[in-house]
Amino acid sequence: MEDLKIVQTASWVPDQVIDNDDLSRIMDTSDDWIQSRTGIKRRHISKHENTADLASKTGQLLLEKSGWQAEELDLILVATMSPDAYTPSTAAIVQGRLQAKNAVAFDVSAACSGFVYGLAVASQMMSTGMVKKAMVIGSEVLSKLIDWHDRTTAVLFGDGAGGVLLEKVPVKAPTLLGLQLKTFGELSNELSAGMTSSGNTFPKPLTELTPFKMNGRAVYRFATHEVPESILQASAQNKLTLDQIDVFLLHQANARIIRQVAKRLKQPLEKFPINIAEYGNTSAASEPILLDECVEKGMIKRGDILALSGFGGGLTTGTIILRY
Amino acid sequence: MEDLKIVQTASWVPDQVIDNDDLSRIMDTSDDWIQSRTGIKRRHISKHENTADLASKTGQLLLEKSGWQAEELDLILVATMSPDAYTPSTAAIVQGRLQAKNAVAFDVSAACSGFVYGLAVASQMMSTGMVKKAMVIGSEVLSKLIDWHDRTTAVLFGDGAGGVLLEKVPVKAPTLLGLQLKTFGELSNELSAGMTSSGNTFPKPLTELTPFKMNGRAVYRFATHEVPESILQASAQNKLTLDQIDVFLLHQANARIIRQVAKRLKQPLEKFPINIAEYGNTSAASEPILLDECVEKGMIKRGDILALSGFGGGLTTGTIILRY
Repeated sequence: MEDLKIVQTASWVPDQVIDNDDLSRIMDTSDDWIQSRTGIKRRHISKHENTADLASKTGQLLLEKSGWQAEELDLILVATMSPDAYTPSTAAIVQGRLQAKNAVAFDVSAACSGFVYGLAVASQMMSTGMVKKAMVIGSEVLSKLIDWHDRTTAVLFGDGAGGVLLEKVPVKAPTLLGLQLKTFGELSNELSAGMTSSGNTFPKPLTELTPFKMNGRAVYRFATHEVPESILQASAQNKLTLDQIDVFLLHQANARIIRQVAKRLKQPLEKFPINIAEYGNTSAASEPILLDECVEKGMIKRGDILALSGFGGGLTTGTIILRY
Repeated sequence: MEDLKIVQTASWVPDQVIDNDDLSRIMDTSDDWIQSRTGIKRRHISKHENTADLASKTGQLLLEKSGWQAEELDLILVATMSPDAYTPSTAAIVQGRLQAKNAVAFDVSAACSGFVYGLAVASQMMSTGMVKKAMVIGSEVLSKLIDWHDRTTAVLFGDGAGGVLLEKVPVKAPTLLGLQLKTFGELSNELSAGMTSSGNTFPKPLTELTPFKMNGRAVYRFATHEVPESILQASAQNKLTLDQIDVFLLHQANARIIRQVAKRLKQPLEKFPINIAEYGNTSAASEPILLDECVEKGMIKRGDILALSGFGGGLTTGTIILRY
């Protein structure tokens, strides 16, 4: 039989590091306040790189580390909520830069769940045989959307990118073990960024984007309830027990959410790696950055069963369970 | 056997009509100039509705006309290059408004090829059995991105939405007859809108979006070469001849492009319906609006073989061949 395999991981973040003390100099906040409520110590903030730059660098690293040629790629998917443009898609820019001339490229917009949604779309295109070799990248320059005067959101977000190469390969046992996506559009107002106004005059001026707005309490409640639910539903599809899952790679929005999810699932916190201290919330990039770190550090080994679980704007949740 | 069926079509455009004479009062242009070069007479421009409003109205019509209940939907895909926001996705907003609580919802970004890319993604999710009933909508309020001082682009675009309901049903013969997507990222600069700048200061102000910018000559050359190629490749997959295709539903960017494609394919122009005079270029919405009009007018009947072909920002092309 053939199934999906994560062949390679890679990630890339901007050089510039802004720590909590830097933020406390421009807004009424403190390192202690931010750390105790979010687990964040610092974040990488782009100086000159836009979302496609971070994604392209990640794509280059994926090719270099794997030895794959760009022409082998059939698909480049970029999950992002901070694209370079409405058109061209960030994925098309990456495709051009990598000279991956045989790859179809488009963006998927599902905010912080985007990487899991992107993996889901890629997995379906691979299951049918339409795609053999795919690059799926989560990339964000969220700093474009930060209101640096709003201390309730400005402290939370960071920039970065991460991604994987996927291939359909002969396997002894299935590797795609669970996939569950869910959308809660009735809660769409609880978290927004980059809102446009429809305008009501002709002719009218160009659109300006709104910054992040979040009902933190509602999102916390949502995440701590729906993420465990999503993981349980995905694992039930192939009758996996939670004890069989080796590593839970959750979207890094807030260390407290992750601890609460671990508690609700009655799983040891050691199975939930957390790197939010270093990066803040990088939306669709957070899980692939975390995955790459865990692989590079040897914390994830071939054969391990991984549950990647995203949640956020939409509101959305998504869990994919894969044997690494 | 089971295969994909277009169960229902619908479309919705804003009330406000701006004709070429209206434009000639605010810029140096004329009805004659616009019509002779593009085929466009007028376009619908939103007054109060944003992209999710047009998409939701289309979604409501799809449900009303089909008799489907919102809860039956497994998937809502919105193809758009003018989303309401970076998050929530336009699809998530539609999902909330329709109370389609069982539908996964996300946006696909592939500009004017977006509707075909959306159909492609939906088709793959349906082929694997992950999705049974899908709503795919193309929706755009491109007027948000128009620079009303640039007469080379301002005359081209309009607002609107269209969509389909898809279901996997028992069929006697296959209905999904061809699917070909291609991306030309090396040409990504030829057509852009909604560009963001990465900024190079911290803290920095919020992003403002750039309006449409287009190298019209390059896009014309691209479309007239690559669209025929895309249709030929899609039809070759199941050894269809072009004569077997009853209707070619091309993205409505420019009447001259459509005539040129018909000529290159040596197919009669009567098989290429054109409605750009009424709507202008509505990007991802143009094909589903055209499809809906043709179905409503009886120009497309059950059993007809349709080739939907999109092209545009990315640059991208995409063709899907379906038995209606």
